[in-house]
Amino acid sequence: MTDFVIDWERERRTGVAEALLCAGKTAAQIGAILTSAGGRRLLLTRLSEEKLAALPAAMRGALDYDPLSSTAFFGDSIVPDSVGPGIVCAGTSDLTVAREAARSLAFAGYRAPVIADVGVAGLWRLMQRLEEIRGFAVVIAVAGMEGALFSVLAGLVDAPVIAVPSSVGYGVAAGGRAALHGALASCAPGLVTVNIDNGFGGACAAIRMLRRMAPGGAPSG
Amino acid sequence: MTDFVIDWERERRTGVAEALLCAGKTAAQIGAILTSAGGRRLLLTRLSEEKLAALPAAMRGALDYDPLSSTAFFGDSIVPDSVGPGIVCAGTSDLTVAREAARSLAFAGYRAPVIADVGVAGLWRLMQRLEEIRGFAVVIAVAGMEGALFSVLAGLVDAPVIAVPSSVGYGVAAGGRAALHGALASCAPGLVTVNIDNGFGGACAAIRMLRRMAPGGAPSG
Amino acid sequence: MTDFVIDWERERRTGVAEALLCAGKTAAQIGAILTSAGGRRLLLTRLSEEKLAALPAAMRGALDYDPLSSTAFFGDSIVPDSVGPGIVCAGTSDLTVAREAARSLAFAGYRAPVIADVGVAGLWRLMQRLEEIRGFAVVIAVAGMEGALFSVLAGLVDAPVIAVPSSVGYGVAAGGRAALHGALASCAPGLVTVNIDNGFGGACAAIRMLRRMAPGGAPSG
Amino acid sequence: MTDFVIDWERERRTGVAEALLCAGKTAAQIGAILTSAGGRRLLLTRLSEEKLAALPAAMRGALDYDPLSSTAFFGDSIVPDSVGPGIVCAGTSDLTVAREAARSLAFAGYRAPVIADVGVAGLWRLMQRLEEIRGFAVVIAVAGMEGALFSVLAGLVDAPVIAVPSSVGYGVAAGGRAALHGALASCAPGLVTVNIDNGFGGACAAIRMLRRMAPGGAPSG
Amino acid sequence: MTDFVIDWERERRTGVAEALLCAGKTAAQIGAILTSAGGRRLLLTRLSEEKLAALPAAMRGALDYDPLSSTAFFGDSIVPDSVGPGIVCAGTSDLTVAREAARSLAFAGYRAPVIADVGVAGLWRLMQRLEEIRGFAVVIAVAGMEGALFSVLAGLVDAPVIAVPSSVGYGVAAGGRAALHGALASCAPGLVTVNIDNGFGGACAAIRMLRRMAPGGAPSG
Amino acid sequence: MTDFVIDWERERRTGVAEALLCAGKTAAQIGAILTSAGGRRLLLTRLSEEKLAALPAAMRGALDYDPLSSTAFFGDSIVPDSVGPGIVCAGTSDLTVAREAARSLAFAGYRAPVIADVGVAGLWRLMQRLEEIRGFAVVIAVAGMEGALFSVLAGLVDAPVIAVPSSVGYGVAAGGRAALHGALASCAPGLVTVNIDNGFGGACAAIRMLRRMAPGGAPSG
Amino acid sequence: MTDFVIDWERERRTGVAEALLCAGKTAAQIGAILTSAGGRRLLLTRLSEEKLAALPAAMRGALDYDPLSSTAFFGDSIVPDSVGPGIVCAGTSDLTVAREAARSLAFAGYRAPVIADVGVAGLWRLMQRLEEIRGFAVVIAVAGMEGALFSVLAGLVDAPVIAVPSSVGYGVAAGGRAALHGALASCAPGLVTVNIDNGFGGACAAIRMLRRMAPGGAPSG
Amino acid sequence: MTDFVIDWERERRTGVAEALLCAGKTAAQIGAILTSAGGRRLLLTRLSEEKLAALPAAMRGALDYDPLSSTAFFGDSIVPDSVGPGIVCAGTSDLTVAREAARSLAFAGYRAPVIADVGVAGLWRLMQRLEEIRGFAVVIAVAGMEGALFSVLAGLVDAPVIAVPSSVGYGVAAGGRAALHGALASCAPGLVTVNIDNGFGGACAAIRMLRRMAPGGAPSG
Repeated sequence: MTDFVIDWERERRTGVAEALLCAGKTAAQIGAILTSAGGRRLLLTRLSEEKLAALPAAMRGALDYDPLSSTAFFGDSIVPDSVGPGIVCAGTSDLTVAREAARSLAFAGYRAPVIADVGVAGLWRLMQRLEEIRGFAVVIAVAGMEGALFSVLAGLVDAPVIAVPSSVGYGVAAGGRAALHGALASCAPGLVTVNIDNGFGGACAAIRMLRRMAPGGAPSG
Repeated sequence: MTDFVIDWERERRTGVAEALLCAGKTAAQIGAILTSAGGRRLLLTRLSEEKLAALPAAMRGALDYDPLSSTAFFGDSIVPDSVGPGIVCAGTSDLTVAREAARSLAFAGYRAPVIADVGVAGLWRLMQRLEEIRGFAVVIAVAGMEGALFSVLAGLVDAPVIAVPSSVGYGVAAGGRAALHGALASCAPGLVTVNIDNGFGGACAAIRMLRRMAPGGAPSG
Repeated sequence: MTDFVIDWERERRTGVAEALLCAGKTAAQIGAILTSAGGRRLLLTRLSEEKLAALPAAMRGALDYDPLSSTAFFGDSIVPDSVGPGIVCAGTSDLTVAREAARSLAFAGYRAPVIADVGVAGLWRLMQRLEEIRGFAVVIAVAGMEGALFSVLAGLVDAPVIAVPSSVGYGVAAGGRAALHGALASCAPGLVTVNIDNGFGGACAAIRMLRRMAPGGAPSG
Repeated sequence: MTDFVIDWERERRTGVAEALLCAGKTAAQIGAILTSAGGRRLLLTRLSEEKLAALPAAMRGALDYDPLSSTAFFGDSIVPDSVGPGIVCAGTSDLTVAREAARSLAFAGYRAPVIADVGVAGLWRLMQRLEEIRGFAVVIAVAGMEGALFSVLAGLVDAPVIAVPSSVGYGVAAGGRAALHGALASCAPGLVTVNIDNGFGGACAAIRMLRRMAPGGAPSG
Repeated sequence: MTDFVIDWERERRTGVAEALLCAGKTAAQIGAILTSAGGRRLLLTRLSEEKLAALPAAMRGALDYDPLSSTAFFGDSIVPDSVGPGIVCAGTSDLTVAREAARSLAFAGYRAPVIADVGVAGLWRLMQRLEEIRGFAVVIAVAGMEGALFSVLAGLVDAPVIAVPSSVGYGVAAGGRAALHGALASCAPGLVTVNIDNGFGGACAAIRMLRRMAPGGAPSG
Repeated sequence: MTDFVIDWERERRTGVAEALLCAGKTAAQIGAILTSAGGRRLLLTRLSEEKLAALPAAMRGALDYDPLSSTAFFGDSIVPDSVGPGIVCAGTSDLTVAREAARSLAFAGYRAPVIADVGVAGLWRLMQRLEEIRGFAVVIAVAGMEGALFSVLAGLVDAPVIAVPSSVGYGVAAGGRAALHGALASCAPGLVTVNIDNGFGGACAAIRMLRRMAPGGAPSG
Repeated sequence: MTDFVIDWERERRTGVAEALLCAGKTAAQIGAILTSAGGRRLLLTRLSEEKLAALPAAMRGALDYDPLSSTAFFGDSIVPDSVGPGIVCAGTSDLTVAREAARSLAFAGYRAPVIADVGVAGLWRLMQRLEEIRGFAVVIAVAGMEGALFSVLAGLVDAPVIAVPSSVGYGVAAGGRAALHGALASCAPGLVTVNIDNGFGGACAAIRMLRRMAPGGAPSG
Repeated sequence: MTDFVIDWERERRTGVAEALLCAGKTAAQIGAILTSAGGRRLLLTRLSEEKLAALPAAMRGALDYDPLSSTAFFGDSIVPDSVGPGIVCAGTSDLTVAREAARSLAFAGYRAPVIADVGVAGLWRLMQRLEEIRGFAVVIAVAGMEGALFSVLAGLVDAPVIAVPSSVGYGVAAGGRAALHGALASCAPGLVTVNIDNGFGGACAAIRMLRRMAPGGAPSG
């Protein structure tokens, strides 16, 4: 069988550890990779409940699994005690993606509160939470449909805003392209974007920023 | 030569008169159509200055031409004395399209003020004008880039809001698709849309609504 | 658990109430939102029969559910006694979308008759119903495939025509883009459009217009 | 220099002669090909006035050039005395394409009248000419924007209808995709289509049909 | 319940009868339409085995169903005794579509032999059958992937060639767009196209042509 | 004339000042906006040499114009004395975009060196500069074609990496979509992206990050 | 029943034998084709386990089936004893496609080792295997997401590199278009590409090259 | 000024030398790069006549420029005395791309004859040259429109076939996507592709293959 080559040095090199994207891998492959991990910690993303159920029972028991975000933690648990980004979320349907970000941050040791249901169709909801949002050093925003939240938010706060477009929506919004283009074409300067539904990627980007903002945050090279 | 068949009955049938879309027509064709019009009034849209210059001088003199919107009025002038929609506009670059709408309304007898530079990157500008905008029976909104203005506006007013996406922008916004999808995928219910850069179409839609809202507005069939 | 924030003020602000789009939400989330609603009325859209069955029995019993349109009414029932728009529908397959519009209107108190099977491949069918259609103050048109009905209809009536492109069709029509572009690129001026399969949005747009057409219809701001 | 290989046998084999698509060829290449033609007849399409002007004067004089369709006839003239298809055309801007079809038919010996300005926004114009159109053995229909004419027409006549979508339009119609998809997704069965702006191809398709409809029309193989 | 309006006059008007596209319709709707048909004949397309099984047993028994093409005949059977088009087919996977065309022709009274497995990767297979193919008055060609068969065939025969692109293929060919564009962009003049997987539409186009080719084939208007 | 509304408060609110995107604006509009600026500083982007030449001479003289990046500084000059991001650039053709970023940073007071010609086709060039690049607190990467530089770079450094896809390339790379998708779909976690050719946006994103990294960098709200 | 026409001469003519693409074919059709094969060898691709199970037991037993690649060998087994290409693979999820290539090569008699998990996010993994990869006469590279591996690899080796983009990924990478465009738009000259997920095609391309590289490799025509 | 970093080691490393893509570079940048080249040879591609004219006269004189392909040779001339690939070309309009390939090969020392005007609409032209084409060790095929030539050719020869799709065509073929997809979706196995209009890339791919086919052709690593 082909050997698996986990990039264990990635965290030292880039500040963020390699994670195991389970979509597209068989349960057998996932099992073999976990076995090869030794005692090391590993974050699993996009692990469906069906695939989880197909893992050996002992391995399943070793996973801290969260069904809403389809993520699992493998290895020793840690307490997320660093101050992380705020996660701002347009609607209830976006919570799956928001939670993938929150879990990825927790795995890396960061607390990241989720501020949900602040979509711009009812602008007062965002305004009500604005001071709280302005308190974060980095903001992750999750929105589907047209993604108008990204522009409104980036026009109101001065922290870095990382847009995570979600695939929530139908018709021209199906698959998340409308929200993605809403983020990229935004009239609010300084907004940055990751791939559709990429809560993990949004979290990693926030970590890169937060590490440099920490006192003594210095190049690790 | 092929005869031209203007649909002179369109106004009686649908409430909005046929207009002459000059893009794609030669100056010779435009001249022939105007000649065939007899004394009747006609709105010309997308008439470039080059094409205008290629018309016979006498015909040129008979046109009330506006270079910013590339529109011209042919025939008797009328005073726009009916109360029309408000035209809300995200940025200076959208004024070309906003003015096509305003001129189309003026040709049909409606006054339509333009409220410009209220894009959501600086939300306070929209908020400052909100009461004024709430006073209109119908609102036409023009925006390019990601078109976030459409959602914010439709979440704040109760009048019908007609989005006119503009082709302002570059990268994924080039050509206006991002703004169009922003309008179609909007999280604010009840927003309606016309084609990209179709200021004329937005005006016609407003006219259909305003005629029915007028006291005594009744089916014309 | 994250709190849900329903925009209960939306109806007062924009004339149309917030609805609960069930696609993309778990049954648990839907249940929690309904519980948080207190006694207030709520419209649920895109509620599949599978998700309905996953709700607690008591909650299921409190819903007035319509399987064809996948909509449900929560809360006190009202009699739809206001005169609403006409809903014109190209084919039998479009009825799902047409009925989502009709139910959304009924929830808001409007009667909206559906005129079905008047696609333009057999033009006489539309012509036969034309006088009846001309009697409506607003027309919602639902069509898939190429959406030619939109242009023909908007060229024959003077009321506002709201196109709701449906995802009916295959090949280049799959997903509804051909019908959507048919509406946007229409040669008939004054046609407006909402997102593909968005019967709810078409209904909300009609409500915005009808409220302003009603005697005493005035800005609510 | 590379030799050119005209497929002189194509007419015998397929019923339609090879034509010279001048777009993408230099004036020098066009000149060399005409020289290599000997006395044989050749149809040139998409020959811009600039490229025509760049040909040697003697060669220019040998061409029967039509600026509206950008076509030219090279070689002996013939009288178009066979009864050809009818060409039905939505708007004035489509005449360029319609005329490319008419000229291609004339070069092959067919008379093809153009019935213009019968777009469906004013349906009465089409209805007024319907009996005339029903008299043709084959109908070529040219339309841009949403191409609704194709479906309406194919639902009203029993002859083969060949749609030639044109690139007339802007926004989502720019480039002709909306009209093309309107033809392909048509609800009217039996409609066939060629490429956008391909008046020449529409003419060739009609010729293939007409040859077989002629008394004694038999396989040429 | 909404009444269904079958366009029973379509055959008299356009030469081809209305068919019932079952995709997108519920079994209940299909049953109601068949009931409303009275004794009249009707062709059903895209009727899946699941939906067939959901029809009442008596209705099922009244259908002549063909699983490969998912078509059914309702009403009196007729003998297909008119000479129809040849159906040329690139690969085995295209037979589903080819058979939809053949069944649609049989329902209308035409015999249409299928010549399969003549894709151009092994050109000799097409060459071996070429004389036979040249004997048809009209040719329907079915191909997926890149659709190169369309161009090669149209360059070899003089009959009208109707391309039916199929959705056979993966990657850039998935869904049939590559084959469709192969037909539309063909270098072989006079090729015409219908929508992807539209075997029924290809058959209807052939019928329109064949009726006019028949001795005494005259306008029916 | 419509009044212009510059969002002068944007810098206080979001950390980055509003800039004047000159594409899509007439020289007259640009002139009017500059006049309305009073003595305040303003950055102009996408100001073509033609449009510059159309400004009044006095206004032209007041601009510090850079032709490679098509940017201009209006108002008092400042010395860029803050340490800014590194700008890493795949090829010479990307320098236009890289320089738009560098100039936007200089206008805001940041020094940003450009490290050019380190595309991955010759990986040694990037490796040679790697230690230097690892020294930056934030990295802006500019690349066109397939944008492979983004993934390689983000896998080698631990600073935040902001991808600015450029429209350099042809065929499937034309317009910059291939590079944009290369950035969004990157296998290297934590990479963020802005719109195609948006050097200004990349600079603004870097400024948002750098302000928070500075000692005493605190929310400005 | 329609006869099947396998192109048995393809190997002699083009160097690669026809294979049976099972996707899109019914189990009955696959069975009939295998029966018609006589004793001849045949490679089956994209044979799902469901379809395999639907074949008659005897036929199933005659197949050497590999579930990871969904391929099967029919007919006499041979020993792959020729030196084949190296297959380089970005991630574990790409192994399905890599293995389709390896199995296609084994069927044709070539040994092709798979070098997995060398994606560029952890560049050291590729560098570690570089000398080994440089030893192959032809390299097949399989990668999904953004496909940056293709450019990096083609810039480091001098053998022909055949990119096989995989559909691994989500958001803008879903379906494999981002990886495909990454290969086509590559800044590394001389890279060639096949269709998404086309491991079989990549193998056939390698075989065409290897046959010519073999001592005495000569045209087979 | 930024220094330019030519990858002079590329030829040793990958077998093909770096070339200078002039599109997207200013004349000043091109001049600076040539100056930095010292006496070394360099191939320039996509050098328009306008940009050539903007170079200093001395530099212009040092270039061997070919206007049809927009290529130039800088540095010592060499005699192309190695046997190269055959270049097969569908139509006259494709010669620009075919010649870019031929010139790139000549610069590297390979003779590559062009076989033009063998498009499949007149299949006999290809058949007439087939034996000649079968004599080449590698074949480069250039075609636009639907690119059917690629499949036909790859089904007839056993050498590696490199498709170079050209942007020749209009409508759905505009820009070359139809031809590109025709190559990628080909039913003929073992065909490989490069980017649209990338004659240089096709040449480099052929060189990688030919170097390995040469007696003594061995890994260079």
